[in-house]
Amino acid sequence: MLKKVLIANRGEIAVRIIRACRAMGISTVAVYSTADRHALHTYLADEAVCIGPAPARDSYLNTTAIITAALGCGADAIHPGYGFLSENATFAKMCLENGITFVGPSHTVIDRMGNKGQARRTMMDAGVPVVPGCRESFHDAGRAKQAAASIGWPIMIKASSGGGGKGMRVSQGPDDFVEQFDIAQREAQNSFGDNTMYLERAVIDPRHVEVQIIADNHGNVVAMGERDCSIQRNHQKMIEEAPSPFLDDETRQRMMDDAIKAARAVGYTSAGTIEFLMDQNRNYYFMEMNTRVQVEHSVTEFVTHRDIVREMLLIAAGEELSFTQDQIKLDGHGIECRINAEIPEKGFLPSPGVISQMHLPGGNGVRVDTAAYDGFEISPYYDSMIAKIIVRGRTRIEAIEKMRTALEEMVVVGVSTNLDFQYSIMENDTFRAGLADTGFIDKFLKGEV
Amino acid sequence: MLKKVLIANRGEIAVRIIRACRAMGISTVAVYSTADRHALHTYLADEAVCIGPAPARDSYLNTTAIITAALGCGADAIHPGYGFLSENATFAKMCLENGITFVGPSHTVIDRMGNKGQARRTMMDAGVPVVPGCRESFHDAGRAKQAAASIGWPIMIKASSGGGGKGMRVSQGPDDFVEQFDIAQREAQNSFGDNTMYLERAVIDPRHVEVQIIADNHGNVVAMGERDCSIQRNHQKMIEEAPSPFLDDETRQRMMDDAIKAARAVGYTSAGTIEFLMDQNRNYYFMEMNTRVQVEHSVTEFVTHRDIVREMLLIAAGEELSFTQDQIKLDGHGIECRINAEIPEKGFLPSPGVISQMHLPGGNGVRVDTAAYDGFEISPYYDSMIAKIIVRGRTRIEAIEKMRTALEEMVVVGVSTNLDFQYSIMENDTFRAGLADTGFIDKFLKGEV
Repeated sequence: MLKKVLIANRGEIAVRIIRACRAMGISTVAVYSTADRHALHTYLADEAVCIGPAPARDSYLNTTAIITAALGCGADAIHPGYGFLSENATFAKMCLENGITFVGPSHTVIDRMGNKGQARRTMMDAGVPVVPGCRESFHDAGRAKQAAASIGWPIMIKASSGGGGKGMRVSQGPDDFVEQFDIAQREAQNSFGDNTMYLERAVIDPRHVEVQIIADNHGNVVAMGERDCSIQRNHQKMIEEAPSPFLDDETRQRMMDDAIKAARAVGYTSAGTIEFLMDQNRNYYFMEMNTRVQVEHSVTEFVTHRDIVREMLLIAAGEELSFTQDQIKLDGHGIECRINAEIPEKGFLPSPGVISQMHLPGGNGVRVDTAAYDGFEISPYYDSMIAKIIVRGRTRIEAIEKMRTALEEMVVVGVSTNLDFQYSIMENDTFRAGLADTGFIDKFLKGEV
Repeated sequence: MLKKVLIANRGEIAVRIIRACRAMGISTVAVYSTADRHALHTYLADEAVCIGPAPARDSYLNTTAIITAALGCGADAIHPGYGFLSENATFAKMCLENGITFVGPSHTVIDRMGNKGQARRTMMDAGVPVVPGCRESFHDAGRAKQAAASIGWPIMIKASSGGGGKGMRVSQGPDDFVEQFDIAQREAQNSFGDNTMYLERAVIDPRHVEVQIIADNHGNVVAMGERDCSIQRNHQKMIEEAPSPFLDDETRQRMMDDAIKAARAVGYTSAGTIEFLMDQNRNYYFMEMNTRVQVEHSVTEFVTHRDIVREMLLIAAGEELSFTQDQIKLDGHGIECRINAEIPEKGFLPSPGVISQMHLPGGNGVRVDTAAYDGFEISPYYDSMIAKIIVRGRTRIEAIEKMRTALEEMVVVGVSTNLDFQYSIMENDTFRAGLADTGFIDKFLKGEV
């Protein structure tokens, strides 16, 4: 088994990983920036190493500092969490070269899936449905425009190295194509240092449905059901649920089979997510693969009664998956709301500051993951998430009512939050009917749903 | 379905019931004493009615005030929680006579099981094992002493109306019998207004193992596994776990069968608990039946993934149990620690006061049930429980490690707590080995384990 794990992250996911390690008897090392001197993960770990100043590039993205810390304290593994270095193939390779186990897939897999155009081609070859488009990559708007016409309008222009909605634009037709291509390409260059673009047909009013998979080094791959993450704003997820209210059993089974096929095609190991776009006729298309644990993994844990982070650590230690596909049953309905320090009325402007008081909900079927506490400062340097509230009910409506109660109970004083906004979604008829697609939040803000 | 439920209780169990009602779309009415004007249950319910001053006899035990409140606000049911009026047959009958559904068994069953001597005879008749003793009741020490000699020493002297360890004494032999009988009888008279006593052989170094049962009005009775509550002090439980580390499958099955037999014998409906004493050879004996939801019901919920309070409400509304015996599987291991405002070093002296700051643990496999919050006053009028921390792990050791982490994370400022004491039990070898019997805490305090 692993003896000592360094957690190359902060916030609730660092706390989540520390807790998993402790329950397994594994020692933990936190790394922290100067801004996180009093962060919960810094306190909770058995050891804590400061790796630099607040901006992430100088600390949580500083690969040399983190590897040095790991070597210095004798950690035999690094868990990267999500964000930061979690999908950085170079970092995964550095771990390998330094004799440290990277808790995640191999660097070659990360690299292969990290290039969105290449991932798309891999999936096509594996027989996993992708959005109609072309296999080519483009640097030139003119040549791309010709290809677009042959695919059919509207067209989605995407960055090959993209993610998180950056470097992505819809073109409605030949008239706005060049303009949108240029915008997307500039964003891609600025965000990823790579201006390679590719094209897909734009899916109208899609839902975001993703399949959680987990695979060990012994050839076992298990799909842990799907999550519906259609409630998002600017491609940032706000609410996730499992199962998807939109799916029938037959489509679910096909998606899970395809996800397993996708994972096998690339020799995937550890936990990962295959994200699909789904149109209103339940046709689904591979969008991308996240080669790491996701924020919303907890929803899946709550309805499968499994521990994904624990499983990742076991897999990293070379063990076999502790469960089989047959043992995965979705029990009830789970919903997660991300509670952020932000001002929904002002375009979701972040609201950093000190949390002077906080009261968390609890009880049967309620899980709270947070790294915040009374007196904790939500730093402007990092994302504004305060907590994840996850509930489980026997039915979807019961889960929604449970979430409503949990949101009502939660108190955060000192910073503005999206608690009331999340509450109002729980009361929205379109959401309650399970009819929300990825355009929901925009329509909701305009009062159209 | 029920439309409006009045919760005749306070504290975490009142909050627990309110939450269950909300998830089911049932309106809630809280009742509160003047001391509980700012209590969480008072805030959370849809309506709240003040029923009198702080001492429980003037408010939470004031049957007339509670029935009046229920009638006044049009509640169609009353959930009594645990303690207070939950096992008061007269109150259950008052509900019936006023057309209000009592969420629990019928008043005749409460009455029958409330008299411990009568309950014992009922169980003997039903073929459920009871501690060797005699069927008679006693008011006179002399006659009782003769009977004791024929049962064999040591002897447990118990109050017929007893509960919570009151009116209960062990006599080691004829020399101390009359003295112990008199003490127990005086305590019985003072605590229950009834000095009827009965005798049993004292079980040496017993474990406390209880079976959760639940029954509807359609003849379905399900046993939801057992809980081991051997970690107690003066008959007050401190730690409960499920399953018991001491049981084998065969004994477990026999206990569950006997519990179902016991429930059927009295025509039991709703949730209830059959408490057994178990000796070191795994012989078990009926001790008493709690005709209500228990503090530790949450441990069973956590390992069965069922909602006992919800089920009680459904049963009260006349519905069938939502699960069958076959569907009850114990998934992993659950442990609950009761966190109290008390000073273990001073004989567990209650430590009432204002909680100026509180931080709760959370994450995967952690459940917190509390009615406390920052600024909440732990009143000297009521029990000193601040929160129940419940964890679930795949194995018992994983659950213990998870509890250790949770206890470490929890912060309570303003009152003294037993957090460190509970933590030290999690580190104790005898407890970790699953070898603790009901004498554990005494030995632990003396440093003998």
